[in-house]
Parts: sequence; structure tokens; C-alpha cells
Amino acid sequence: MKKYFNENFKHFLHGGDYNPEQWIDTKEVWDEDMRLMKLSHCNEMSVGIFSWSILEPKENEYDFSFMDEILDKIYEAGGRVLLATPSGARPRWMAEKYPEVLRVKSNGQRNEFGRRHNHCLTSPYYRKKVYEMNSILAKRYGKHPAVIGWHISNEYGGDCFCPLCREAFTKWLEKKYEGDIDKLNFQWWTTFWSHRFDNFSQVAPPLPHGDSYASLELDWKRFVSDQTQSFIANEIAGVREYSDLPTTINMMPYQYINYTKIANEIDAVSWDSYPSWHKPEHLSLAPEIAFWHDFFRSMKQKPFLLMESTPSNTNWQEFNKLKRPGMHKLSSIQAVAHGSDSVQYFQWRKSRGSNEKFHGAVVDHVGHENTRVFKDVTELGICLEKINEVLGTMPSVKVALIYDVDNDNALKVAQGFQLKDKKYMQTCYTWYNQLWKRGIDVDIINAEADLTPYTLVIAPMLYSTTEKTVANIEKYVKEGGTFIGTYALAMVNENDLCYLGGFPANDLKKVFGVWAEEIDTLYPGECNYVRCKNNEYKVVDYCERINLAPSAQTVGKYQDDFYANEPAVVKNAYGKGTAYYVGARGTGELEDFVVGSVLKSLKIEGNIKKLPDGVTAHSREDENAKYIFVENYNGDKKIIDIGEKMLNLETGETESGEVVIPSFGLKIYKKAK
Amino acid sequence: MKKYFNENFKHFLHGGDYNPEQWIDTKEVWDEDMRLMKLSHCNEMSVGIFSWSILEPKENEYDFSFMDEILDKIYEAGGRVLLATPSGARPRWMAEKYPEVLRVKSNGQRNEFGRRHNHCLTSPYYRKKVYEMNSILAKRYGKHPAVIGWHISNEYGGDCFCPLCREAFTKWLEKKYEGDIDKLNFQWWTTFWSHRFDNFSQVAPPLPHGDSYASLELDWKRFVSDQTQSFIANEIAGVREYSDLPTTINMMPYQYINYTKIANEIDAVSWDSYPSWHKPEHLSLAPEIAFWHDFFRSMKQKPFLLMESTPSNTNWQEFNKLKRPGMHKLSSIQAVAHGSDSVQYFQWRKSRGSNEKFHGAVVDHVGHENTRVFKDVTELGICLEKINEVLGTMPSVKVALIYDVDNDNALKVAQGFQLKDKKYMQTCYTWYNQLWKRGIDVDIINAEADLTPYTLVIAPMLYSTTEKTVANIEKYVKEGGTFIGTYALAMVNENDLCYLGGFPANDLKKVFGVWAEEIDTLYPGECNYVRCKNNEYKVVDYCERINLAPSAQTVGKYQDDFYANEPAVVKNAYGKGTAYYVGARGTGELEDFVVGSVLKSLKIEGNIKKLPDGVTAHSREDENAKYIFVENYNGDKKIIDIGEKMLNLETGETESGEVVIPSFGLKIYKKAK
Amino acid sequence: MKKYFNENFKHFLHGGDYNPEQWIDTKEVWDEDMRLMKLSHCNEMSVGIFSWSILEPKENEYDFSFMDEILDKIYEAGGRVLLATPSGARPRWMAEKYPEVLRVKSNGQRNEFGRRHNHCLTSPYYRKKVYEMNSILAKRYGKHPAVIGWHISNEYGGDCFCPLCREAFTKWLEKKYEGDIDKLNFQWWTTFWSHRFDNFSQVAPPLPHGDSYASLELDWKRFVSDQTQSFIANEIAGVREYSDLPTTINMMPYQYINYTKIANEIDAVSWDSYPSWHKPEHLSLAPEIAFWHDFFRSMKQKPFLLMESTPSNTNWQEFNKLKRPGMHKLSSIQAVAHGSDSVQYFQWRKSRGSNEKFHGAVVDHVGHENTRVFKDVTELGICLEKINEVLGTMPSVKVALIYDVDNDNALKVAQGFQLKDKKYMQTCYTWYNQLWKRGIDVDIINAEADLTPYTLVIAPMLYSTTEKTVANIEKYVKEGGTFIGTYALAMVNENDLCYLGGFPANDLKKVFGVWAEEIDTLYPGECNYVRCKNNEYKVVDYCERINLAPSAQTVGKYQDDFYANEPAVVKNAYGKGTAYYVGARGTGELEDFVVGSVLKSLKIEGNIKKLPDGVTAHSREDENAKYIFVENYNGDKKIIDIGEKMLNLETGETESGEVVIPSFGLKIYKKAK
Repeated sequence: MKKYFNENFKHFLHGGDYNPEQWIDTKEVWDEDMRLMKLSHCNEMSVGIFSWSILEPKENEYDFSFMDEILDKIYEAGGRVLLATPSGARPRWMAEKYPEVLRVKSNGQRNEFGRRHNHCLTSPYYRKKVYEMNSILAKRYGKHPAVIGWHISNEYGGDCFCPLCREAFTKWLEKKYEGDIDKLNFQWWTTFWSHRFDNFSQVAPPLPHGDSYASLELDWKRFVSDQTQSFIANEIAGVREYSDLPTTINMMPYQYINYTKIANEIDAVSWDSYPSWHKPEHLSLAPEIAFWHDFFRSMKQKPFLLMESTPSNTNWQEFNKLKRPGMHKLSSIQAVAHGSDSVQYFQWRKSRGSNEKFHGAVVDHVGHENTRVFKDVTELGICLEKINEVLGTMPSVKVALIYDVDNDNALKVAQGFQLKDKKYMQTCYTWYNQLWKRGIDVDIINAEADLTPYTLVIAPMLYSTTEKTVANIEKYVKEGGTFIGTYALAMVNENDLCYLGGFPANDLKKVFGVWAEEIDTLYPGECNYVRCKNNEYKVVDYCERINLAPSAQTVGKYQDDFYANEPAVVKNAYGKGTAYYVGARGTGELEDFVVGSVLKSLKIEGNIKKLPDGVTAHSREDENAKYIFVENYNGDKKIIDIGEKMLNLETGETESGEVVIPSFGLKIYKKAK
Repeated sequence: MKKYFNENFKHFLHGGDYNPEQWIDTKEVWDEDMRLMKLSHCNEMSVGIFSWSILEPKENEYDFSFMDEILDKIYEAGGRVLLATPSGARPRWMAEKYPEVLRVKSNGQRNEFGRRHNHCLTSPYYRKKVYEMNSILAKRYGKHPAVIGWHISNEYGGDCFCPLCREAFTKWLEKKYEGDIDKLNFQWWTTFWSHRFDNFSQVAPPLPHGDSYASLELDWKRFVSDQTQSFIANEIAGVREYSDLPTTINMMPYQYINYTKIANEIDAVSWDSYPSWHKPEHLSLAPEIAFWHDFFRSMKQKPFLLMESTPSNTNWQEFNKLKRPGMHKLSSIQAVAHGSDSVQYFQWRKSRGSNEKFHGAVVDHVGHENTRVFKDVTELGICLEKINEVLGTMPSVKVALIYDVDNDNALKVAQGFQLKDKKYMQTCYTWYNQLWKRGIDVDIINAEADLTPYTLVIAPMLYSTTEKTVANIEKYVKEGGTFIGTYALAMVNENDLCYLGGFPANDLKKVFGVWAEEIDTLYPGECNYVRCKNNEYKVVDYCERINLAPSAQTVGKYQDDFYANEPAVVKNAYGKGTAYYVGARGTGELEDFVVGSVLKSLKIEGNIKKLPDGVTAHSREDENAKYIFVENYNGDKKIIDIGEKMLNLETGETESGEVVIPSFGLKIYKKAK
Repeated sequence: MKKYFNENFKHFLHGGDYNPEQWIDTKEVWDEDMRLMKLSHCNEMSVGIFSWSILEPKENEYDFSFMDEILDKIYEAGGRVLLATPSGARPRWMAEKYPEVLRVKSNGQRNEFGRRHNHCLTSPYYRKKVYEMNSILAKRYGKHPAVIGWHISNEYGGDCFCPLCREAFTKWLEKKYEGDIDKLNFQWWTTFWSHRFDNFSQVAPPLPHGDSYASLELDWKRFVSDQTQSFIANEIAGVREYSDLPTTINMMPYQYINYTKIANEIDAVSWDSYPSWHKPEHLSLAPEIAFWHDFFRSMKQKPFLLMESTPSNTNWQEFNKLKRPGMHKLSSIQAVAHGSDSVQYFQWRKSRGSNEKFHGAVVDHVGHENTRVFKDVTELGICLEKINEVLGTMPSVKVALIYDVDNDNALKVAQGFQLKDKKYMQTCYTWYNQLWKRGIDVDIINAEADLTPYTLVIAPMLYSTTEKTVANIEKYVKEGGTFIGTYALAMVNENDLCYLGGFPANDLKKVFGVWAEEIDTLYPGECNYVRCKNNEYKVVDYCERINLAPSAQTVGKYQDDFYANEPAVVKNAYGKGTAYYVGARGTGELEDFVVGSVLKSLKIEGNIKKLPDGVTAHSREDENAKYIFVENYNGDKKIIDIGEKMLNLETGETESGEVVIPSFGLKIYKKAK
């Protein structure tokens, strides 16, 4: 069954951030915007994201005239609106009168007004004020025919070290550790360096001039994530006073907050995606972005929105290269292929001044439609209209890869291995890429997710795991699942406290048939080799020395160094399932071998059978049809064999056998079930 | 007509910073200094730069005995003095009693006493005190026969974030924006991110814990420059109570303050030049230093002073290499060739302790004259005496290159392109080098300068321009000028607010016959090629996609990528003049082709016709004669053809045709008019 | 005569840091520890290093039950204890109630509780409290049969900028400069930049927002070192109320405090050694570590303790590689070969949580003895028992190398040469390596040490020297010593004030027969060559231009650049001795030539005559026998000729002529006298 963002507007959303208040003195620009919106086949505007200083220019003095006017205009022009709550930035009068709304840095200094992401997450005044503003907006616009949903604030992130937040952190810890400071002392192992706490009020956040260590940092990050979540809950409660339209927040990878948990507060997930296409590592970028699309789709197991992207270049990356012809459509439809029900931009019209004025936008400073970018956007709008039946569908997925933000945070602060960068993300990408290049649909899930829907689960570098996760993995394999784990598996619990009795933790030694005795960290440039069957695969960075249980079977052995001939890749039958343990980090080839072998044994195949480098195929489906998106990220055309007859959704023609995918091009097929 | 620094002392100044107060306990050193001054053919000492703590050891208790004695000694030995005002550093008692004289950093912390450049630019007490000290000095020494001019303070630079400066900034803004906060809101485009100001008092300087963006930073830099200027005006007013001797300040490139504007306060420009000769990029350094000599000469269109240089190595560069034989004379005379009427050193005698004790000086720690450096200095002193007739002359210049400090500042903070380094200086150097290597004299002017004296004006990367400048360029070309502009021309006004309607701004699209639609930023290592006539030139970093007006003529086309065959270099006849637009960044070869073609069409030739790599020729002249300086920066001798007969000013002999310029050597010729 | 740490326990100490309080809730772990201690042939535990929060959980409420129990247990199991004073970390209640115990950073901010090295060195409260705690511990445990010595605090280091320390610094300066501020003004040359002090109270420590220059920084470092020393003296005074057991502190190279002076407070030197074995530069690491072993042995001219080392990898280095088979024994016995009477570890059992849980330890998280590391430790324990007769012996040394911490600090802050890194340590290592690779025992001494015991003294880059040292060197050579000095010799006194009259200072010009006129600093990648006899040696970084006295003999000449054919290496007979001056930095080959020639002329030979690369031989001896340790740091076996018959102490068999040293292996021989 299809799942829609808003049942009353069953169209791909095409549009984006719109800041008409910047042009309030030249309203002819607004009329031109309406003309151009229609011309570009756009149908959506995200309005009000940074409007607070216009809506409430003085405390409790509101002025909604600009919003009234622009919402009407958009609706008249056939558009719809995601209405933003304006908490992402606040007016200066508020910071002046209530300094508590400003963030305090870890050095103890309170910020002055300015930039973004500059509000305290705890401030009772700010929470109250946001609640009020949101309910006023909901009351005034909740029934406006243009408005189809709520864009709650903007790109939440960051932390605050003010006294209010410190106090809230104390209470958070007190709750987590059930009021028993010795539970905290034990989990954080504070007897080390004589750091025992006598009571919760002594605990400070991680500070450059105070303390900082893994357990503290992990709980601080969880607190910040939870505080962000309760801030969002408060925002939405304000909206819900008068509106039941769907809500979303636009997420950002690399914020290292627990989005999976936060997603419970909202109706739909959306995210902001800014890949640096055409950089020298261009081809590796496509699966990385696919990874995040899958991550955000998997979160609520329903279509997401691509809330922000650039129709052209960005202006804040180190090198801001133009998208080559074709790439705008390809990268936009990539999102759709992975489950997006929108293609939205930051922003509609380039600002005339300030920080992001050179960021790509649909309408350039030149003001007219005769630009390459405007034409690219229009072409995409037409395409989205042609494939509208894809809206609301989802892929059917057999393989999951565990990317866990708690584990990511834990590896970041772990004192060991390669100290500065354990390369967790890169490792996840390497494993994911083995599936992407085979055209296999994947869910990206966190460690505590339900594993039972999947035939195969891959968990790269799952260093930090709860006891519950340890038990879940054991149960999953015992009941017939196939699981691939790697070096550094299950070494610590969620508080960075080591499991005793040998790694991986507890029963996982039985599941994988291994005890990992010690982990050798290689210097850059050093390597070893692992022989599997008749091939040798280069391994780098980490080589674990593994002791085998009698049940286990050696799949690959080290070839060099003092652990030559010791096992490096191990397979173990456990219960009704099978577990694989990969003790060393490959450079893609070893991972390719392992994934290829396992997929073959499980008879899992891709959406298209044979794909050249840089080409992939992903799918969405409903009860009646399957939609296959074939994407070519190469700068030259590729010929691929799609096999059976399929309907080209854009041309309306049937294709089969060998077809040509142009440079930076794609095909969208429909296959009846 | 010759222009002299001081009509009563018509000699090249040869000498430098002299700190006899460091040797006050061993006055035999002073006598030795006088002996060595004469021996080395030096004739000038800059005295008193850091003497405040000696001159006023306690508040309002003065002691001028050391100064009285040393000025008399110098005069007796035949020397002259540039007398410094001592505001570059102040006594400790002052900082203790009046902490407001100390600077506050951007994090809000007031400095403790120490280092240099540590005074508030606004402090009323410090301004008053400086005024007093300067008038006392002027009264006491303004008529002393040794004193020929005023060395006002030392190397002004830096900013202060104290409450007094913040308040002064508020007033400065209020004046600039005519008391209308909405003018500021518009120019700074503050509606972006809801940053609108309600009144001027809300505006803070750019702060690490507050706000920071281009418009704010640019106005802050202008304010700091103006505040420095009014500080200087106050200093000079103190001096002028009792003295009308000429004043100068020793400027430093890279301070990013508006020296051109500040120069209005003083009688002569001087600067401190510390090139790292003999570094691996040695040959490219010669035109870079020439560029700055031209910049400082052009500022007031009269000879400048080389106030500081090292007779040997420095001690504060990353690698402090010795000057090779010949280089001291060559680099000193380079300054003279470009308009300097002095060669002065930091410092006369090496300090025995503290930060700069290993900085090259005329007299070494060894104390005697039997050093390589002392001999080099003496040789130069003799040369300066021989060429004394050059004093006061100026070059006759047809070509100007626009280097604009406001534009430099704007590019530094611009959010776009290559984010970290737009390479504006390097680009200016590349264009300048095309003239330098042809032996063509150049003025370096700012964007608002009068263009009418020049046959050709080159403006690399002139991204930020006032409306007035836009109009000036239009007028200059219309009336017959030739102008070369490049990618990123005239995109924003002086407040970083974009021009609307397409780049370059306003009428410049007509002048150049182009609309620059979008700018492609390449990654390091990437390139394209531009074909002009039969040659292809490599281009890097930036490739603009250009739309042509019908009038325009394509000079060069891109060869690769999706804009292959689109125009890259354009020529446009406009009014009585011609405008060239270069849409991509070359690596020197493209710029060489463009400049070469344009010079040929304008029939502009160098001082010497054919010059090998690393050799240049520059000139000065008066009504009667032209003086040509041929300089060889290569580590081996070069043979060049000087053509017609000329008088070698040093040997008194006539030379013509092929002559040998030794390794790191030079020739100084006189040609009657 | 043998010198023992404790006459009542004449065994190599084998054991290390033991933190049983971390396992206080699972005391079965304690029993297991005792079993494993015996099993691993360990005999020592360092207890109580971070126990303060357990021993005094509330102010003046003590609880010694854990300590009572564990000391008894260890003794029952046959072990001995180094009992720590717990001042390395303190309980939270103390920081809460007496914030003065916390350190203040140079920016003026007081730390919050946390990390280590976080106590003020001056705080009267903390000194009093430490004194009390130490005397309580001494009273309770000073006669305990397990306790054989005192481990005073832990890894002293760092500085504090609180008002108390600033005041103490003022007094320290007042004493040093005999209450005369103008003595300080002269030595610090404060007239430069008008920085003269009126009184001592104006002097602040080096501050990022205040002043910083060499003289100030050097005196600050000396003050911090002296303050650390008086802190230690206070600790020991507390202990001495009730115990006369030997004391030690565990030192760390790179703390840049004057350990040689501090060593006067303690009975034995110990240090913590954490080399990164098997990194790509592995082979150069062996002599570097040997250098520090020699440094710590030379300090009190008696055997030292290797207080901390890792039995496996570390966890805090950038890459934490495993020790290869053999390397644990080799690197441990290396310490013994250079004079250590212990091999101790951080730590006995891996912590379960916090910062160092992945640091190598004897007992791993797995908990049992069946690990590679445990076996390595056990093997070493057996070896130490077999060679017990070596205990208390010392090498007989003819060659000394001067490494001077004051000079190191002075070079670090010197404004000149290669600014960022003068490579003093690397230079010392290069010279040391010429001796190490020849199997020659060396003392590492500071500049003021007695030189008379040595036949040869080498002083690389001895830039900063007192007048006294200058005189000592002169006397040493005059009376028959051989001395090798290099470029940058004796340029400044201990306050970074230049010597006048030419370098090297004063009479050293006569001693070496040179006046070093100027020093050329080369860029990376640049070089010159020095010809000595028939070979040319590459020189880099620094080339001094040297003027010769008539007495001096040129050993090597520059081959390139403008100083080609000028002297680079000079030999000078002076009095009864000989002085060598090496004016340029070689890359090892030049130093090899110089050292080789000088050793030959002095007839000094190594412990073994011919040694391949990466193999060395060091010795200890007493009246009756000499013990020779042959060490092979190569990853493959080496055959060497040991010549005469010697007893292999481990096998009890006699060997002679060619023997095989395995990869990462060693031999320990005894030769009767």
C-alpha cells in the first residue's frame, strides 16, 4: 500500500526554500517568482524558515501581512506550501532581553547574537516562546488551502553548555542511572584516575578546561539528542493546538544525534543533501549518497522528502564546481529511486547578500529564466510529473547494513586503534558499495533495529553494542539469519565499558566461532594479504589475531607477518543460521569477495544482473508494479542488458535487452507484477 | 620636476633603525657606531621608535638626556635623523594605570602588557598622551639640525574589540548609513537568517562567539582603517604644534588597511620590505617585490622611502637564508629603480637580547667592520652616492594594474569559488609579471583611482566594485582606453551586495560585450584549455561560462568539458576604446598571450627590448635624462642587448649593444633626453 | 661496588602499576591477580597511584581497608610493593571545597576538576594536604614487609598560571636577580620594544594575551621546574616523618623540566618508556630509546628503574601496533643493558573502562593467562631471574654526549635559524647513533656536568651556555680532553643574551680555532657538500661560514655555493687536548666520519668489534665480571663475531666466534675480568 506525505496532494513535491521577505521592498519580484514557479514545473514552496524577525518585529507585536499575501499568491499560482516554524533563528530583541536563549560554548562563554544554531536547547523562555509562535501560526494558517505540512525549524544540531543545560544534564543522568551515583561510577569506571563522583551534581559536560572521556562524551551526546528531541516535541505540541497537518524536520547526516529516536516525534523524515558531484572521487560519491537516502527511508520505513539540495553548485564547499549536464536530473532521481517523494531546493531565488548568495538556486541573480540551471530544473519537473505513479511506493528489501550513530560516536572518542580516525563511515561505505554496485536494495538500520525482516545483515566495525543487541544478533543467527561481522566487534557496551571474558562479547564468541585475542594496527602504507580460495586480498589498517572455535571454518588466512597462516576470515554455522567474521580491513576487494560469496549462497540478486562500474539499479514497488531506476554516474554512456521487456516511464515505450544509458543519465522502468 | 623628501638634504638616505638606548650602559658603543656609520657610507639614523619607557620613565617625568646626546653625536658625525614618535610601544606604568590603552581581543579578553601593536586605537587617554608626547618631541627637536623628518609610530596594524572601539564602530556605521538602520539592513541583506537590526547599537564587530559575515567584516575593516587614520592624524597634529618637517609612516603590505586613503595624512610614503631571497621560488619573488614598490610609489605619485630592509637574513621567517653575494646591492637598487629615495635597514646594530637579536644588521654581535655584511652595506653606500642625480625622479608610466585592498578584503571573506583561497594576490602577480618581464613600468592603483593617465588598465578579479568604479571603467573605455578584465568582474558592490541583472554589473556587460552566466570552480589538478589563434593555453581554478553580445569578438575558446567551444577570451570595441574579458585563470601563458597582444596593438614597449627570464629593466626620469636600471635575479650572468649608447652611472663609461649582467647583478644607465 | 635500589630485596623488579581498587566489587579478581602474578614470574606491584578518592572519600575521613588487604595479599603471594603517594590525582570534594588546588591555564581560566596533571604547584592547602596524606601512609605502611620503596606521585609535569603561582614566580625572579630589577632588564634586554620593568611585580608568566619571549619563557620554565622540585621535596618530607625507604619519581622525557636537578631530592631515578616499535622508522628508534636510558642512568650515576612500559601495544599513540615476537624481551632487556634494575609495566590488568582500557597490560580483558602477551611477560620474568647477578652493576664509560634541557628549551624558543624546529633532539640522536652502532657505552650529561671522567665529549648544537660552562669546556680541553662542538655553539648565555665579540663565546674561539661569522639556513631539499679526505658528505639545514685561527687545521671544506672551499670541519690542538668544530649539519655520514676518526685516534672501541646495521652491544660490570648485551633490532637474524669465549647467562653455555642473533633477539654474555 502506498504511503503519502499528504493524502490530499498526491504529487512529487518539486520546489524548495523560499524567502520572499528578503524582497519585501520589491514585490514585483514576488510576481515574477509565481510566473517562474509555473514555468519551471515547480509546485511547492517552503516558507517562513527564517521569518521570525519579520513576523514578530517587537516583543508580542506580530505582523503577518507578508505571510498572508505570499501564501495566497502561491496558492493562486497552483503551488503548495510547507510552512516552517521559525525557531531556527530568532529576532535580536529576544537575545537582548532574554540572553538565556543564546548558546554557551564549552569554554563557558555565552555567544552574542548571530549565525544560526545559536539557541539554548533548555531555556524555558525559548521553549515557551516557540510553543506560542507555533500555535499562533497553526491557528492562522493551519487551514490555509496552500499549506500541506509543517517544516519544523531547520537543521537542528549542536549543543549548549549553559547552567540550565548543565542542570538538565544532571537530571538526565540521575534518571538514566536510577539515582544511584555508583551505577554511574561503575559504568564510567571512574575509579580510574581517582575520578569517582560523590553525587550527580558534580558531573559536568565534556569541557576543554575540565574533563572529557568516552563515557562522559557518549552520555552528553545522548543527552543533547534527547534534549533536541524534547525541544521538537514542544514545537510540535504548539502546532498541534490548531493543526493536524503532517510534520517533518530536515535532518543532516554528521550531526551525530539519534535521528532514529527523534523520528518518532514527526510524521515524515526529510533531509538535506549536498554532495560534491564531479570532485575527483566522483564515482565513490554516488553510493555514499545512496547510503544516506536508504538510511533516511529506513528510519520510518516510508518514503522521505529530499528537503534541500542544490540545482547547481553550492557556495560553502572548498571547491564549488558546477553540475555537468544530466547530473541535476540524475542526482535528483537518485533520491526518488531510493524512496524520496520530493525534490526540493535550497533555494528558490538567490539571495542578494549575506552568506549564501552564491549558493545555487532555481532563479539566479540575473533574474530571468534563460539560464542552464533553470532549464535543468524545468526538465526535472516535467519528468516528475511523468512518473507520478511511483509516489508512495517502497522497495522490497532483503539485506540490511547496520550503521549505528551510538557506535559512530563511540568509535570517534575511543582511545585506541588508529587514534585520530577509525574510518567507521568509510568502512560502512565500503561494505555498502558491494551491494550498491550489484543493484541490490538495502536498508540502513541501527543496531537495536528488528533484524527479522532480513535475509542478510552486515555490521561493519560494530564496536559498541548493548547487551540487548548482543542477544538480538545471537537470536537472529540462531533462528536462521546470515550475519557478517568484522574486527572490533562488540568490545564495549553503550557506555564504553569493556565486555569481559574475550571479544566479541558474551555469546557472540559462539555465534561467530571466534575469540579475537588482539588487534594489530598497521601504519599507513603497511599491509598484509588474506588468501581466500585462490586469490589474495590486500588488507590494511587492522588485522585481528583470531582464535577459532572447533565449529568454525577458516575462509581466509593471513599470508604475511608473524600471524601468517592464522585465520582472517571465518565462517560458522550457528543454530539455523550462519555467521561470518572478517578480521581484517580490506580495500574493497576482500569485501567484494565476502559479499559476493554470501549473496550467491543466499541466492540474492540485484535489480539488474550485470552492471558496469559506476552504474546501479534501484527499485520501488507496490502491489501492482515494480519501478526500476537505472543510473549511470560515469562521464560516458554505458550499454547494459536490462533483459526482459520493461516500460520506459518517461517515453512510454517498451525496451528490452541492451540499452544505452547516457553519460550522467538514467532510465526509469516499470515492470508489471 | 624632481620631488624630494626634504629639500635641505638632497641625498639618498642610507641608514636605518638605530636603538642606542639599548647600549646606554656602554656608551663606547655609541662612539663606535659613529665611526662605523661614516665607514659604511651611511648617512641616516631612525631614532626613538621604541624609546618611550626611557623618555618618560614615570608618568609626566621626562628624561631626554639620551636623545639630546645621540642626536648631537649623529650630527657631528655627518648623519641625519628621522625622529620617531614612540607610540608603537608604551611604558608599563601607562598600561598599569590606564588599562584602556591595551587592546582587547575578539574573544573579549583584554591583553596584558607586552608584545607590539597592543594599543587601543580609540582610547581617549592614549590619543591625548600621544599628542602630548609628540608635541614635546617636536618642540625640543623640531629645529635640531640632525632631524630631517618624522617617522610617525611604527608599522600600524591590527584591531581592538574593547567597548570604546565597539561604540566608535557604532557611530562610524551610523554616519555611513546616514542614521538609517534600514539602509544598513538592506546593504547587509540582514533579513537572511532573520538577522535584522533594530538600531545601530546592536551591531557588534565580527566575533568568534558572535556574528561574522562579509558585509560586517568589510565595514569593520574600513572602520579599523579609518580609526588608524584618525589616530595618525592626531599624532601628526601633535607634531605640527612645533614642526613642519615632512612626516611618513612605515607601511606593511598584508595589513589590509586602506593605505591609499591613509597616505593623505602624511608627506611621504615609506614601507618595510622583507623578501625571502634565494628561497626555491626565488625568481618569482623579484616581480612580487617590484609590485609593492610600484604600489607604494603610485600611492602619492612621488618617490617613496624603503624604510626597513635587512642587510642580511631575517630571523623570523621560517627559513632565514643568507643573501648571496650581489643580492644586497641588487635588491636595494631594485627599490631605487622603482622609485625609492632611500635604502634603510632594520637595524643598525644587532640587539644583544630579545626577539630580533638574530635579525640581520649593519653591525654584528662581533662588533667590528670585518664582516661580509658590513662590506656589502658599504659597497651599496658608495653606489648610492654615485647615482645621486637619480634622487627625486619618477618613471613615466602608461600601464596601470588595479590592486584594490577593498576588493582583496572582499575576496577573502567571500563565500564561494575556492573557499579558502581565491588567490587574488597571486593572480595580480601573474598579470603584473607579464609587464615586469618585458621591462615595462607600471603603476599599481586602487579601483577608484583616476584611469585617464593610462593607455592600458588591467584589473584582475575585480569582484567587488562600487557603482562609481563601474561608471569610471565604462567612461574610461568609452573615451578611448583599453581595459582588461577577468572572471568574477563586478559581481558585488562595496558591501558584498550582488548586482542584479547579470554579471559584470550594469553597463559593464555592454563595455565587455559579455554576460557571465556561471563560474565553474575546478578542483586542484583539474584543467581546461583555451585556444587562441594557433595555440592552446592551460586554464585552472575558474572557468566562466560566457554569453556574448553581438558586438563582441571571440579571441579564445574552451577546448574541453561541456562548455567546449564556448568563448573564454573576448574582445569588444566600445566607444573609442577596447575592452578585453578573460573568463578563465591561466597559468601565466594565457596572460602572457593576452598582454603581449594588447601591448603590441598599443605599441607599448619595455625599457629594454629583449630580456631573458629573471631579468628586467625599470626606469626613472626627469626633464633632462632617463635612468634605466637593468636587474638580473639569476644565479648566473646574462648577456643582454641594451642597444644604443648609454652612460653607466657607476663606472662613468659608455656602453652599448651586448653587455654582461653578472649573477645577482645590475647596471644603472643614464640616457640623455 | 654494586648499587641496589633496596638492599633488602636484591632482585630485578618485574611487575608494575596495579589498581585493585578498580575491582573492589569483584574481589575474586584480586585472588586471580595473585595467582597470575606468581605464574608470570612477577614480583612487584606499584600500588596506590590513583587511590586518593578511595583512601579519603570525604575530607579527613580515611578508609585504608582496601590498602591493608591488598598489601597483605601481595606479600603472601611473594610480591613486593612500591607504594605510591596519591597526589597525581585528588578527590572531587577537595576541588569543590578548595578550588585553589586546580590549575589555571595561561588564558587565565581555572580548570574544572578532571583529567590528570591538574593541580597547582604552589597551593599551600594542597602542599599541606599532600604532606599529611604522605605521612599518614608512611606511618601506616612504612614498616609493612611488602613495601620496599616509595613511588612519589606520578609523572610530574605542566604548569599553572594562577595568582599564587604568579606571585611565587615574582619571588623566584627577585631571588635570581638579587632584588635588582635592572639586572633582569639587562639580561632580558627589555629596552627592546620599550619593555623595561619598573619592579618585579610587573613580571607576568608567558601569556598568549600578554608577553612571550625567550628570556621570559626560559625563566618561567626554570621556575616551574624548581616549583615542581619543592613540591616533591614537600612530598618526601611527609614520607620521611615515618619511613626511610628509598624514594623515586617516574620521569618522562619531553617534559622539559630539569630532572638532573630534581633528582637530588630522590634516592633513585625511574622513568616511563613508550616507544612505538615497528613503526616505519623502527630501526632509528632503538638508539633513541637507548639515549634516554643512558640519560636517566647518568643522572645519579647508578642503576635506574624502568617504572612503566607496555607489555604489548599502547592505546594513545596515533597507530597502536602490536609488538612482534621477541620484541617484548628485547626492548625490556635493552633497558637492563643500559642500567635498569627493573622491568615494570603500565599496567598489570587492563582497566574495564575509561581512557586507558585498551593500553597493553599483563592481564587482558579476557582474564586468563592464555594470551600471547602473558606468555611474553612470563618468558621475560624467567630471564630476569637467570641474570640476577647483573643487578646493581654499572657500565664503565669513556664517552659523554651533552644533552642539556636548558639548551633544548632555549633552542625551542630561539627566534632564528629554522624557526619552527631546530631539530635539536634529532641532532643529538644522530651523534649518539654513531656511538650506539659501534657498541660504545655513553653517558648523557647536561652542560654543567663534570667532564673530567671522559676521554671524549660531544656537544651537538650547544647554543645556550653559561659563562661557567664556557670556562669548563676550555679547561677540559686545555687539560687534555677531546671535545666535538658544532654550528651554533655558545651563542647566548642562559638568559638568551648574546655573547659579544664573535661566536663561539669568549675563549672558545681559541679552543676551537674558529670565529663563526654567519650561519646560512638552507631550505628543505637544499644541500651542500663537505669534502673530508677523499669523500664528500652531504650537509643540510645549516652551513656556518667560519673564519680560522692560524693554529686551526681544516678537516673538511664546503664544495658548493658562495662559500665553496671555505672550512666546514676544523680541528684545533689546544693545551693538552684537541677540539673539533663541525660547522654544518650532516645526514649521519659526516657525523660518522668525524666520530669514527676521533674514536680511532683515541683508541676507543665498542663492546663488540663489528656490528651490522640495527645491532648493538652494551655492557654493565662490577669488580669481577663484565656483562655484554648484544641486541638485534632487525626483523631477520644476524650473524656476528663475538670473538673470545663468553658465558651465555641464559643457557649457561659458553659461546665464541660467530653466533646467530635471532630476529628481534638478544644474547646476554658474561665475561670474567
